[in-house]
Amino acid sequence: MALYVQKYGGTSVGDIERIRNVARRIARTRQQGHDVIAVVSAMAGETDRLLGLGRELSERPVEREMDVLVSSGEQVSAALLCIALNQMGVKAMSLMGHQARVETDSVHTKARITRVDDERLRRAIEGGHAVVVAGFQGIDEHGNITTLGRGGSDTSAVAIAAAARADVCEIYTDVEGVFTTDPNVCRSARKIERISYEEMLELSALGAKVLQIRSVELAMKYAVPIHVRSSFSDAEGTMVTGEDESLESVVVAGVTSDKKAAKVTVLGVPDQPGVVAGVFEPLAEQNISVDMIIQNVATDGTTDLTFTVTRDDLERTRDMADGLAKKVGARDFTVDPDVVKVSIVGLGMRSHAGVAAKMFRLLADEGINIEAISTSEIKTSCLIRAKYAELAVRVLHDGFGLGDR
Amino acid sequence: MALYVQKYGGTSVGDIERIRNVARRIARTRQQGHDVIAVVSAMAGETDRLLGLGRELSERPVEREMDVLVSSGEQVSAALLCIALNQMGVKAMSLMGHQARVETDSVHTKARITRVDDERLRRAIEGGHAVVVAGFQGIDEHGNITTLGRGGSDTSAVAIAAAARADVCEIYTDVEGVFTTDPNVCRSARKIERISYEEMLELSALGAKVLQIRSVELAMKYAVPIHVRSSFSDAEGTMVTGEDESLESVVVAGVTSDKKAAKVTVLGVPDQPGVVAGVFEPLAEQNISVDMIIQNVATDGTTDLTFTVTRDDLERTRDMADGLAKKVGARDFTVDPDVVKVSIVGLGMRSHAGVAAKMFRLLADEGINIEAISTSEIKTSCLIRAKYAELAVRVLHDGFGLGDR
Repeated sequence: MALYVQKYGGTSVGDIERIRNVARRIARTRQQGHDVIAVVSAMAGETDRLLGLGRELSERPVEREMDVLVSSGEQVSAALLCIALNQMGVKAMSLMGHQARVETDSVHTKARITRVDDERLRRAIEGGHAVVVAGFQGIDEHGNITTLGRGGSDTSAVAIAAAARADVCEIYTDVEGVFTTDPNVCRSARKIERISYEEMLELSALGAKVLQIRSVELAMKYAVPIHVRSSFSDAEGTMVTGEDESLESVVVAGVTSDKKAAKVTVLGVPDQPGVVAGVFEPLAEQNISVDMIIQNVATDGTTDLTFTVTRDDLERTRDMADGLAKKVGARDFTVDPDVVKVSIVGLGMRSHAGVAAKMFRLLADEGINIEAISTSEIKTSCLIRAKYAELAVRVLHDGFGLGDR
Repeated sequence: MALYVQKYGGTSVGDIERIRNVARRIARTRQQGHDVIAVVSAMAGETDRLLGLGRELSERPVEREMDVLVSSGEQVSAALLCIALNQMGVKAMSLMGHQARVETDSVHTKARITRVDDERLRRAIEGGHAVVVAGFQGIDEHGNITTLGRGGSDTSAVAIAAAARADVCEIYTDVEGVFTTDPNVCRSARKIERISYEEMLELSALGAKVLQIRSVELAMKYAVPIHVRSSFSDAEGTMVTGEDESLESVVVAGVTSDKKAAKVTVLGVPDQPGVVAGVFEPLAEQNISVDMIIQNVATDGTTDLTFTVTRDDLERTRDMADGLAKKVGARDFTVDPDVVKVSIVGLGMRSHAGVAAKMFRLLADEGINIEAISTSEIKTSCLIRAKYAELAVRVLHDGFGLGDR
């Protein structure tokens, strides 16, 4: 007998019939003799409806109350799922964040889980209940309702799985697992059977939407095996686990493209100490996060500085451009949203030389110019013109043999 | 500086614009230097929508989860009201039942408040907040979410007013106050300025929908003055208070008609000990509550027994008729839904003789036959043919001079 944590996203509980389907799946897991803690999101569309109501009343609605407002969505779906389960003869009990003791810091709308006290969960399970926990929500030390930010239910599920020492955390979603790249872009994209936490972290950071990045961090920290799978089929999905011999021995595990990047270039920056800090400090103060940074060697006592920000921050960056250029004595400050970041991710890059070089060659062979490069231990990213995004993904995916197996 | 508890019903917070109106009213009370605890219902229609979702999944949905489900409605309206208040520059904080410590017993869907711990409320008020409490909901000793039954927000408001020692509990609704009778039936119906708890209790019990009966009981127990008034106007409404010299010295305060009654007659019941109990015990076991009971003196060793049940219970009563008649050896068992109960209520009936006699005379003068009578210290009710309902109300209302002042 095992303990399953099963997370069901908004699409999986999107209407009454789908809620019944989820109940059937939980009932089956119970019949197989296992304990179940289900973690649910709000019914698809509900969170947006609630956010819309709040924004009708205020352009910048007070965040504490937005958390109270939107967390009602998970309350509804958790209750409905328990009603469906009891109707099927499965004893089930819902627990809200404050009842399941999902404790967080006090940063409303994007709180972080600090601790899950599993006492109440244990008690419910020992009482013979399937437990349904409202995802996405927690409670701070003062008893205020908090929420974890978009996709936070993944993190709820992993934190609860860690606290309850679950055997596996199943993330049910509307795709069949984690793919080597976006199947909409590349027809030879393949479902990955096993992937390491580290690789999944990079993929999540690079725009793969299947798992919230914090849920992967947490799973890695507490060694919680994650099984990403479809709530609409019984097929095995993707296991996200620690590195071990069972992982496919591939150099590159996946290819991603991130269309949210925008390129910023500061031209003719004086090559003096403190000048670069003078560019980035004001950006940081405005909470604009910078991703890739490239600084060329100086010629004629000046240098060019290139970096990327997310497109959401582009307008605010543009607004600061003149002031920043003047402040550091730069000649010009340009922004360019017409770029995309393509990346390859794989543990094998640690041990295999020449992976990055092969990436550059594959792109070059298609006439795709690389405008910036950044690397980590298991990732290489290139900034290219946006129009080449799909072509680059296909070339890299097939060039590294991801579609073959 | 006073502490106002202000309860706003579902119609008062029925849409975004109405929520803004409520926020303006609270803002005005704050500007006058008063502290405010608002207690809100769910937006009109929301509770029914949620109940509908639950019933789609189960004919008899598990009650614990129905409480979780429907209590989300008040969570939404409380959060939205706080967003509106903060947008107007009024510092406001919502508290759910579990946060405001509205403690109840564990009878899901119709829990009773056992205690309100005002510590968190006090702290929020001392922090300079207008506090908005989600009505209708509480928490039991195990931390389960409970609800108080239809109209329960009135009871939440009064219980909170009692715990926080508020100066007044204002119940904002869609009518201007408590009327001497239904203005739709009797054009001379008049808003009552002051009425005693006792009279209000009888009126609530007899079908006046303006206040939940338990809220009046609680207000009487803790001497909380209630002000029933319209959320759509600034007119003074009706004060419900303890008996004192300021109460209008009238014999009859109000007239009601209750169309939910149905008459049951058991004919030819043997006049022996235990026979009457044999009729009512099986009804009680089926949770069918009986209101008026009339037993005539026996002639020829048998008697006729008449009583009333609510129309909702009529079908179930009819189903039991044959079995019951056979069991007690009665000749026949008939049910008659075509009746109505008209009542007069007034503290003055205690001290004034002949009030009931005058009621019977007023009805008789219109040719209205009285089929059953029941009385309490401050109330007289008559069962009559349903077709005379409106006529009887008008005759009694004007006969006792209620429209004159």
